[in-house]
Amino acid sequence: ATENGPRTVTLIPGDGIGPEISASVQEIFRAAGVPIQWEVVDVTPVKGPDGKIGIPQAAIDSVVKHKIGLKGPLATPVGKGHRSLNLAIRKAFDLYANVRPCRSLEGFKTAYDDVDVVTIRENTEGEYSGIEHVIVDGVVQSIKLITFEASRRIAEFAFEYAKANGRSRVTAVHKANIMRMSDGLFLKCCRDVAELHPEIKFNEMYLDTVCLNMVQDPHKFDVLCMPNLYGDILSDLCAGLVGGLGVTPSGNIGFGGAAVFESVHGTAPDIAGQDKANPTALLLSSVMMLRHLNMRNFADRIEQACYDTIREGKHLTGDLGGKAKCSEFTQDICEKVQRIS
Amino acid sequence: ATENGPRTVTLIPGDGIGPEISASVQEIFRAAGVPIQWEVVDVTPVKGPDGKIGIPQAAIDSVVKHKIGLKGPLATPVGKGHRSLNLAIRKAFDLYANVRPCRSLEGFKTAYDDVDVVTIRENTEGEYSGIEHVIVDGVVQSIKLITFEASRRIAEFAFEYAKANGRSRVTAVHKANIMRMSDGLFLKCCRDVAELHPEIKFNEMYLDTVCLNMVQDPHKFDVLCMPNLYGDILSDLCAGLVGGLGVTPSGNIGFGGAAVFESVHGTAPDIAGQDKANPTALLLSSVMMLRHLNMRNFADRIEQACYDTIREGKHLTGDLGGKAKCSEFTQDICEKVQRIS
Ligand SMILES: CC(C)[C@H](C(=O)O)[C@@H](O)C(=O)O
Ligand SMILES: CC(C)[C@H](C(=O)O)[C@@H](O)C(=O)O
Repeated sequence: ATENGPRTVTLIPGDGIGPEISASVQEIFRAAGVPIQWEVVDVTPVKGPDGKIGIPQAAIDSVVKHKIGLKGPLATPVGKGHRSLNLAIRKAFDLYANVRPCRSLEGFKTAYDDVDVVTIRENTEGEYSGIEHVIVDGVVQSIKLITFEASRRIAEFAFEYAKANGRSRVTAVHKANIMRMSDGLFLKCCRDVAELHPEIKFNEMYLDTVCLNMVQDPHKFDVLCMPNLYGDILSDLCAGLVGGLGVTPSGNIGFGGAAVFESVHGTAPDIAGQDKANPTALLLSSVMMLRHLNMRNFADRIEQACYDTIREGKHLTGDLGGKAKCSEFTQDICEKVQRIS
Repeated sequence: ATENGPRTVTLIPGDGIGPEISASVQEIFRAAGVPIQWEVVDVTPVKGPDGKIGIPQAAIDSVVKHKIGLKGPLATPVGKGHRSLNLAIRKAFDLYANVRPCRSLEGFKTAYDDVDVVTIRENTEGEYSGIEHVIVDGVVQSIKLITFEASRRIAEFAFEYAKANGRSRVTAVHKANIMRMSDGLFLKCCRDVAELHPEIKFNEMYLDTVCLNMVQDPHKFDVLCMPNLYGDILSDLCAGLVGGLGVTPSGNIGFGGAAVFESVHGTAPDIAGQDKANPTALLLSSVMMLRHLNMRNFADRIEQACYDTIREGKHLTGDLGGKAKCSEFTQDICEKVQRIS
């Protein structure tokens, strides 16, 4: 892709506040003149020809065709036996790397300043294998599955991400003191890949120690690479340091550049449809998407406009401590993005 | 046990700074007049009659006999195949509940004020089962084992702890959205026990959400109850909020009141033997022990003296931001403990 190549992106607006924040992103993209066409799809589960309930074929086809998606929050269907739709999408496209950059926002005060860390989470196996058994009544086992293939590719991804994004260190996060074989394999893959990247610093740390150090001094960390569940935990912890899921983006990346970027906050049904939602997480996810598409100039401009709007603090939504509507916040960013060249 | 009953306690001074901080606790107990005799044992692994390497029989016998121990940090023996000695001790005595109270210390500033949470960790199974297999080359599984028995008893422990310690809420921490059967069983046990304790508030939360909320507002939490690995993670995270493992105590409690209290920080070989170590974690662990032995008056006095010394800040060790030696810090507490009645 080139900076100006036209590109179609699948847009999954999602539930609750999803449509509002998606509209906000679309408006900002228009204001910035991003040469992107949206193909809007609905992922509300339907009964397929085989009688099974799942994502509509049209939605799958769209992502398969365009290889790139932007996704708002999805409500997990009520009722037993439904696995999370968010997970279903990551799985359907084998999006093996989950990337969540957590950066402090000037103007949105938390207990921490200048946090700037990125969690890289293995997104396909580990504790999320879904394999569980009742051994006898009252005795259950869940299987954590770690493979060389998935560990090696996420380690490679982490180092390549670090290199492409001017990052200097990768920390492998593990509990190989307890899960010697599974986390041991994961760790060995990280070590092996680290050797191929002498220009990136590498260290390894127990997950518990990372958590302790992260809340004491997040500046010790840069890029962190870890198995699925540890990534689930650490990405939320890090998001908490900089203001929560409402301001942190996320990307799921697979083979050949296929990728779905998403806000990972909830659907906020209590404020849905009231023009009160904060589109920041989805907007910053779309910025990650633009970088992924090599549209770095658009990415930089939109990111800058978003940061500036938050720093100035004149048009902030309720969750950011302001009183502005989603549309006012969006408008502010649109005006800024047009001024930035 | 009564407030004044004499009692023998097994003391495992441990490695590195262990002997110094143990001596500090012994001195403070003497100053306070605690009616306790110490039986000091060494747990350096030895080869048993069966040729296997393990904890010396004399050490095991001592804990079995007195049913109560205080333990400094242990170095994990170098070389493959050694499981953590700390874990071996928890396992040997089936100490199924790990309790870690994390309280902010006045005078030791962190990013958080007035934190006061307690993690209750299932200490015997879960991700620590030690069961792992290579399925085929490059494919490893680790088994997380959750049983009704262990889940039920830790849930009961958590609610009884809450009641005995004037706490108002228990939060069950889980990932039953992912590990539906194993964490589902754990969660069900918590719910069932919660129903038997209507006087204690109960809620349940995903581990990732707890981490996010904990760093944003720890005041939302009180007592937290969870499977083994989640407890490992959350207890360190919470310790980080109040200053780290150097100031947070820990207790491992089993059937019939058997218990080992321990500082969970490292052996700090770099400062060992230099009278620089901070005995606070071990001292506060010994305070937990005194409460466990129903010696509440001694516990309160020693705790108060420790808190006062830290708040005044005249004789703090290096890690607490001062320049005092371990012996000066200890002396300060001894003087205070004698004045408090
Ligand atoms: C919604 C849930 C299944 C998901 C997860 O556990 O991965 C979420 O916490 C996340 O991190 O995106
Ligand atoms: C030393 C290590 C095996 C241990 C654990 O993982 O439980 C430690 O982190 C702890 O929390 O006491």
